[in-house]
Amino acid sequence: MLNAKYMNLRNYTTVKERRKALEKDVNVRLKHIGSFTLDEDIASSCNCENMIGAAQIPLGAAGPLHIHHSSFGIQHYYIPLATTEGALVASVNRGCKAITESGGATTASYRIGTTRGPVFHTDSFEQNQKLYEFLDKNLVFLQSVAAETSGHLKLTGLMSRAIGRYQFVRFVFDTQDAMGMNMVTIATDALVSHIEEKTGATCTSLSGNFCVDKKPAWQNAIRGRGIEVWAEVTIPASVLAQTLKSTAKAVFDTWLAKCMVGSAVSGSMGFNAQFANVVAALFLATGQDPAHVVEGSLGITTCEVIGEDLYISVYLPDLMVGTVGGGTGLATQKEALELLGVYGGNNGKNSQRFAEIVGAAVLAGEISLLSSLEEGSLAKAHQTLARGKR
Amino acid sequence: MLNAKYMNLRNYTTVKERRKALEKDVNVRLKHIGSFTLDEDIASSCNCENMIGAAQIPLGAAGPLHIHHSSFGIQHYYIPLATTEGALVASVNRGCKAITESGGATTASYRIGTTRGPVFHTDSFEQNQKLYEFLDKNLVFLQSVAAETSGHLKLTGLMSRAIGRYQFVRFVFDTQDAMGMNMVTIATDALVSHIEEKTGATCTSLSGNFCVDKKPAWQNAIRGRGIEVWAEVTIPASVLAQTLKSTAKAVFDTWLAKCMVGSAVSGSMGFNAQFANVVAALFLATGQDPAHVVEGSLGITTCEVIGEDLYISVYLPDLMVGTVGGGTGLATQKEALELLGVYGGNNGKNSQRFAEIVGAAVLAGEISLLSSLEEGSLAKAHQTLARGKR
Amino acid sequence: MLNAKYMNLRNYTTVKERRKALEKDVNVRLKHIGSFTLDEDIASSCNCENMIGAAQIPLGAAGPLHIHHSSFGIQHYYIPLATTEGALVASVNRGCKAITESGGATTASYRIGTTRGPVFHTDSFEQNQKLYEFLDKNLVFLQSVAAETSGHLKLTGLMSRAIGRYQFVRFVFDTQDAMGMNMVTIATDALVSHIEEKTGATCTSLSGNFCVDKKPAWQNAIRGRGIEVWAEVTIPASVLAQTLKSTAKAVFDTWLAKCMVGSAVSGSMGFNAQFANVVAALFLATGQDPAHVVEGSLGITTCEVIGEDLYISVYLPDLMVGTVGGGTGLATQKEALELLGVYGGNNGKNSQRFAEIVGAAVLAGEISLLSSLEEGSLAKAHQTLARGKR
Amino acid sequence: MLNAKYMNLRNYTTVKERRKALEKDVNVRLKHIGSFTLDEDIASSCNCENMIGAAQIPLGAAGPLHIHHSSFGIQHYYIPLATTEGALVASVNRGCKAITESGGATTASYRIGTTRGPVFHTDSFEQNQKLYEFLDKNLVFLQSVAAETSGHLKLTGLMSRAIGRYQFVRFVFDTQDAMGMNMVTIATDALVSHIEEKTGATCTSLSGNFCVDKKPAWQNAIRGRGIEVWAEVTIPASVLAQTLKSTAKAVFDTWLAKCMVGSAVSGSMGFNAQFANVVAALFLATGQDPAHVVEGSLGITTCEVIGEDLYISVYLPDLMVGTVGGGTGLATQKEALELLGVYGGNNGKNSQRFAEIVGAAVLAGEISLLSSLEEGSLAKAHQTLARGKR
Repeated sequence: MLNAKYMNLRNYTTVKERRKALEKDVNVRLKHIGSFTLDEDIASSCNCENMIGAAQIPLGAAGPLHIHHSSFGIQHYYIPLATTEGALVASVNRGCKAITESGGATTASYRIGTTRGPVFHTDSFEQNQKLYEFLDKNLVFLQSVAAETSGHLKLTGLMSRAIGRYQFVRFVFDTQDAMGMNMVTIATDALVSHIEEKTGATCTSLSGNFCVDKKPAWQNAIRGRGIEVWAEVTIPASVLAQTLKSTAKAVFDTWLAKCMVGSAVSGSMGFNAQFANVVAALFLATGQDPAHVVEGSLGITTCEVIGEDLYISVYLPDLMVGTVGGGTGLATQKEALELLGVYGGNNGKNSQRFAEIVGAAVLAGEISLLSSLEEGSLAKAHQTLARGKR
Repeated sequence: MLNAKYMNLRNYTTVKERRKALEKDVNVRLKHIGSFTLDEDIASSCNCENMIGAAQIPLGAAGPLHIHHSSFGIQHYYIPLATTEGALVASVNRGCKAITESGGATTASYRIGTTRGPVFHTDSFEQNQKLYEFLDKNLVFLQSVAAETSGHLKLTGLMSRAIGRYQFVRFVFDTQDAMGMNMVTIATDALVSHIEEKTGATCTSLSGNFCVDKKPAWQNAIRGRGIEVWAEVTIPASVLAQTLKSTAKAVFDTWLAKCMVGSAVSGSMGFNAQFANVVAALFLATGQDPAHVVEGSLGITTCEVIGEDLYISVYLPDLMVGTVGGGTGLATQKEALELLGVYGGNNGKNSQRFAEIVGAAVLAGEISLLSSLEEGSLAKAHQTLARGKR
Repeated sequence: MLNAKYMNLRNYTTVKERRKALEKDVNVRLKHIGSFTLDEDIASSCNCENMIGAAQIPLGAAGPLHIHHSSFGIQHYYIPLATTEGALVASVNRGCKAITESGGATTASYRIGTTRGPVFHTDSFEQNQKLYEFLDKNLVFLQSVAAETSGHLKLTGLMSRAIGRYQFVRFVFDTQDAMGMNMVTIATDALVSHIEEKTGATCTSLSGNFCVDKKPAWQNAIRGRGIEVWAEVTIPASVLAQTLKSTAKAVFDTWLAKCMVGSAVSGSMGFNAQFANVVAALFLATGQDPAHVVEGSLGITTCEVIGEDLYISVYLPDLMVGTVGGGTGLATQKEALELLGVYGGNNGKNSQRFAEIVGAAVLAGEISLLSSLEEGSLAKAHQTLARGKR
Repeated sequence: MLNAKYMNLRNYTTVKERRKALEKDVNVRLKHIGSFTLDEDIASSCNCENMIGAAQIPLGAAGPLHIHHSSFGIQHYYIPLATTEGALVASVNRGCKAITESGGATTASYRIGTTRGPVFHTDSFEQNQKLYEFLDKNLVFLQSVAAETSGHLKLTGLMSRAIGRYQFVRFVFDTQDAMGMNMVTIATDALVSHIEEKTGATCTSLSGNFCVDKKPAWQNAIRGRGIEVWAEVTIPASVLAQTLKSTAKAVFDTWLAKCMVGSAVSGSMGFNAQFANVVAALFLATGQDPAHVVEGSLGITTCEVIGEDLYISVYLPDLMVGTVGGGTGLATQKEALELLGVYGGNNGKNSQRFAEIVGAAVLAGEISLLSSLEEGSLAKAHQTLARGKR
């Protein structure tokens, strides 16, 4: 029914033809969008339909960032950050410096797993109860159903909740080094078919916002999703004075006013200074799904004054990350992961190590912004850096 | 104090030198990261410190998308979407088709403004009260202070809230076609200096998480931030059947189970299907700040069955967007905005028109995903598209 | 259609007959329920249908509590608390002692007003816009409509929000010394009729949960409802040591861990220690609507260490209280309000003064519980007091 | 240090003496407060310190209410409601009538347990990890520690979460027919002592708002607390027409606009019409802790149109109730529980049955209010009933 006057992008088979048609139809030049080196063939078939080229995002590096990993030893990294927002890389860089001068950040992590939360519809509480009992007694069977859909995925658990004649089920999967939304969707589709057949319940939606995918949700903050990460460091008074131009008490007071009381009065789900900024830049650089920045913005920063030193930590309950699959195999994204030494599949170790790197980088961002806010240099930084030469 | 063994990225002055040093130090090849056409000089000084190259993100187009704008007439667009997540462009494209076949989406918008929310500290309730009264009586004066910091910005209002000896103030600015966080930070810095001087209160932090910048927060969902946007369309039964392989009742039921009951049980701030996916891809393509995807994920989708037709709408309370400044002037980003005909400054009209385009594209995403979930084709789409040729 | 075997309570006209019938039907003795002195005639017609007697709740008093009111001078009070939970009165009493020994609490308050939030349904955005404009331009007219329904109420403002084809409107009323839900419901009914007539929109529900009445909701926490109240006190080290067996630092640490970090990690809307306990007991004693305890549980406690002293404050954004109407005129409730010197109508002054008393009593509860938790005596208090002689 | 001029209530030993002293000091008459029949000796030692008398709350009854219990057979009840808010008993009564005419409500319930959530402080992540492991491996030991504090309580589980150097632990107890906050506080005190001794961690607060006691919190809505309850009924078109003056479609539309979209736009934790009203009145009548109304206000109502009939359900995730201990043994409260046939201890069966009665009564309230809102009779009911003879 589409008006004949409109160009149909699906009529074109190559990126170039499509772009040319668009340039002609809209009368624009897409010269830079047409300049890219990533593999057009893979990208246009796996990552982006109707592809017309590529967006370029400036990529900077912050570091070195010293990390005492929970299970990956002591490492140092240069953190790749893709961003268009001036002052961000400088801010993270300063935080990395402070961390490294303080002997490095300590990180810890726990794999919750990738979740998919379908919603079923039943006839009555009685059928809800049957569905609940079926799920309760058949985990092993359901695991075998899931395993048949992919060798890279394992159903590790599930929980469910009845609301009226709806039954929400949250399947939790270990997808190793892949973020895995794609494969868990396929696995859940198979699970749902079996459940419908055995219980008579009907699946209303493969995703019932019980996952909860890409929404800010307390279910994720409270139960966790993807990989939970912690990072901490104690910054000596000398580093606070020289590198951060601040003191422990001053940073603490800023944190308390902003991240605690300010977040409380604003009804915020994030009790932090700028998790989203660092998560976004690292996600973009490394081929993560940028919509998962929403989940990465959840979490809590804590501060304590210890004598003249500052203890500071971050907790991120919901990092959806991968080091294989999705956007990670694309040219620049792969290089960024290689820069961190975590590209590819490695029995889940790479993604968990990467998650801890994200945590430590986020900690660097908190340290830098909180001390900057405290000493009043935030506006100055924006004036100098982000306004640049323009 | 940094160990001498570490390379200091700030010792290098060009992108190439920095990248080469990194390649050597970490022993990786950053060939693709080094291949870019954006203006290195501008990018490295305005958008990204310690620049080592650029990330490339596949860019696709969806459309045509017909829009009945509130104040910009009837237009059609091809929507640029930068993404690495297979199936997304195809999904939005299908939604655009359904909208356009239904006669187009109707959009509306309202400029709330860009906000900055500093926190002050006082001696007692009495001083809080003085601060409150000063703010209450001196808006014109404060407007002149703000105006001196930039000709592109106007302080349009403020509200404040006392909590103990803290006073949180939310300044609201009209920054026309710029997203403007940068300039409102500078303006707030000036405002804060004057307020400290006149009232004796001390600013603890230029941002007290009362803005609320880049966190999912009810303050933003309830008061709005940036530009508020609405988009609606009524899809005839015929389009539902042919293009979306569904019916009004079926999509409605899916929406109710997922976006309403599912979001309620999960403690979600987003009562929608996939706002974040579309917002992220459009933001990336057009040089918006990707951390603002967090705020763009807020909002509500509604559905109604009208006879055999489906009425569907989206409401986004918090779109932080610009068509000038920040990342919008970079090469590919500028082209993407030009593709939409909204690049550059235009008395606020371009950013508002762009916000409505985002709203309509988000509506397209909701239509496509909800009907796909309903008819059970989501997993199939992921199987076919995102797994591609790999 | 009710089965004939069932007794119909509406067939009985007096409290006694009804109670007797019930005693016979269920075979129980309701001796104590039948022992009351409140005016059966008024209570059974104004406060409670199908009345069968009265519940008795033990009533204690805490105090004296010294308050420096914002506009009602310096006063001291004995706080009436109706409760069945051992240790509560003792806890508030200890807090009152600490406050009074510290020179008294300072209070402040602001009347937001009682709200009712109907939801309208429209044909399209266009009609939403018309409705919005009608509301925007006709406040004076709407005020006259509201005024006709009662001389005790004034429509002071309104705000509205469109979501799809719904338009939510929040009317704000000054109901002086009455809590006023009853009269604002009647006024809103009149307003809605006029609006339907003039705009063609249809009211779907007189309450669209946009009020938000008796639900924990960020709309109330952020915009306020009823009366907003603040109370603060600085407790000297000597009072901390002698009366509270604690220190400023220790109470501060407990507050930070519990009311800030603990509330954040639990997704709580209340960032306090026990607002609900004190609000409930005071509401019960004085004839407030106990379902409004839900709203009174919202709010934030703050602490600061000043030298060796402790600054502590409470902020309650949403106290729905009255000193006339509803349950306030009943026998014991009236006496409890008289004990505080705030019974009856007094141009809004009594309810505002009462709200500040609630705030100060809540502050007393916070002081006592936080210091008790700190020094580990909570369990002991429960062991001694609440287990009593049983 | 208290000024000598103040009367000290603790100097008096009997209720009468205390009341008389207060009457004299404040110059009021507390005649009705002094008229009560509950056992002064027990009440003043177990339920209320500084007791001066009792508050009387009018008590009405609604019913009969037919319930198909999950495990307690088919029963009918007359629901005792203590309230001062006119129209409430009538509203619940009408809902009971509709339910009973429809064949009765079906209920289900699940005992989550009473929780206490202390917060510990550690030296570092490493000690957090040790504490976590200790808890993980020593449940049986901890159960024995808890069991020693009371024979009426069993530790059934625990979960914990680390945030910086804080470790929040949520202990879950089965307290059978007691609400049990008192005994779980004492048990947690014992647990905490052992944990401190074995792990070196320090307990900062016996309650770290991780319980979450008497605050509206997503932790409770998502994990549940006390007893989870469901109630459902399908109301035939004839009952809708005759008893409720409405239709299935009309009630559904009202529910959707108010309880779903309205709650979403208001940032509400309650997606219901008036849970708090019914919970408050039943809690007051039966000696429950009225501050727990806050938790009882959480939950979701769902509606569905089935042909011309209406399916409606309620879900309450967090009912903190008991039928023994606390206020349940007081004179009128005990009679109210006896009216329901659930007074006293009965291996947890009485409290669970009572919780299901609360659920069904709440369902009655939802049915009545939603149909009343739909047909526009809410204001009329308030006009007739609550204004009564005054």
